[in-house]
Amino acid sequence: MAGRFISLEGGEGVGKSTQLSRLAGALRARGHDVVETREPGGSPGAEAIRALLLEGEAERWSPQSEALLFAAARADHVAKLIRPALERGAWVLSDRFLDSSLAYQGGAGGVGAGAIRALHAIGSGGLMPDRTLLLQLPAEAAAARAMKRDGHAGDRIGARGAGYHAQVAAAFEAMAEAEPDRFRIVDATGSTDAVAGRILVALEDLL
Amino acid sequence: MAGRFISLEGGEGVGKSTQLSRLAGALRARGHDVVETREPGGSPGAEAIRALLLEGEAERWSPQSEALLFAAARADHVAKLIRPALERGAWVLSDRFLDSSLAYQGGAGGVGAGAIRALHAIGSGGLMPDRTLLLQLPAEAAAARAMKRDGHAGDRIGARGAGYHAQVAAAFEAMAEAEPDRFRIVDATGSTDAVAGRILVALEDLL
Repeated sequence: MAGRFISLEGGEGVGKSTQLSRLAGALRARGHDVVETREPGGSPGAEAIRALLLEGEAERWSPQSEALLFAAARADHVAKLIRPALERGAWVLSDRFLDSSLAYQGGAGGVGAGAIRALHAIGSGGLMPDRTLLLQLPAEAAAARAMKRDGHAGDRIGARGAGYHAQVAAAFEAMAEAEPDRFRIVDATGSTDAVAGRILVALEDLL
Repeated sequence: MAGRFISLEGGEGVGKSTQLSRLAGALRARGHDVVETREPGGSPGAEAIRALLLEGEAERWSPQSEALLFAAARADHVAKLIRPALERGAWVLSDRFLDSSLAYQGGAGGVGAGAIRALHAIGSGGLMPDRTLLLQLPAEAAAARAMKRDGHAGDRIGARGAGYHAQVAAAFEAMAEAEPDRFRIVDATGSTDAVAGRILVALEDLL
């Protein structure tokens, strides 16, 4: 059985990590080997880079340095965790992957999608998810969820202004529309159960 | 007066840091504003990345991750230190720059020069030194100097085998031959004074 690589994307507070756990449970119940991971991070080297990315002042890194650090973390994550898991036939579920770099550094940060894709080709051989689930919530609902979870507006990137996060949301939506085979937009309103059900429907053709 | 950007390149133990200090003194004696720096590092963000690069096991990072981390450190170094210094008219002397990535990760590491140059274009706008001084010593003399200085075979990268370091030396020499206007090959045998004199000759047209 071939492995499957699924990424969950969307802004802060849309419920990605909760739904990732739910999906992992559902897949394990069907007998799949499942690896749950997240970006930035997911391997020891990438977690060390994650600390550089998420700590410090908002303007600590230029958008270019930030894009290179995310690509370095992703290269380590892909080489050390994702590819080996896919090769043994596991389902890999990642809370964020390349599309987050495209939306955050590429779109809202101004580095450009072409540059982000070039970094991904160099670092990770251009590995793409088999399916990307874009969880969508109205902006106010997502901000309230992130605030409830963290008690504050988030880490170095989460703390950026509403205009930045609106640009991120628009970039995600444009990417989903441009790649309808890979992306599924999932309505993240309603109960955890309701969203989990929508996610299984969005993966039905892969199951 | 326009600033000048000079890089010193070569393998471990050829005397780059000693000569960089000597050159800085000579330029200051002529009334120049001089900034002495080094890679990886040179700015607070880049020094944090340097720690990730030089610590840990020899195989901690893939060549791809390593190339991305060097490019991220360089992007920070260029944005925060080098460009501002050049803009105010200073001479910037850097112990290693892009050519080290081309020789180590690009040549000996197998990432490829095209990829290293693409990372530099994305991260640092492709900034190149006005002059690059390639210090050359016979391999045994360089190894003995590095051993005397460090008491051991060096950091995570310095500790790699003789074959790796021979590839690095060959890559540097090929690059110098390919760009004769920018590069000057400096014979690093003999006394510190003798090498310092050769370096001033190699910069004569810029002074």
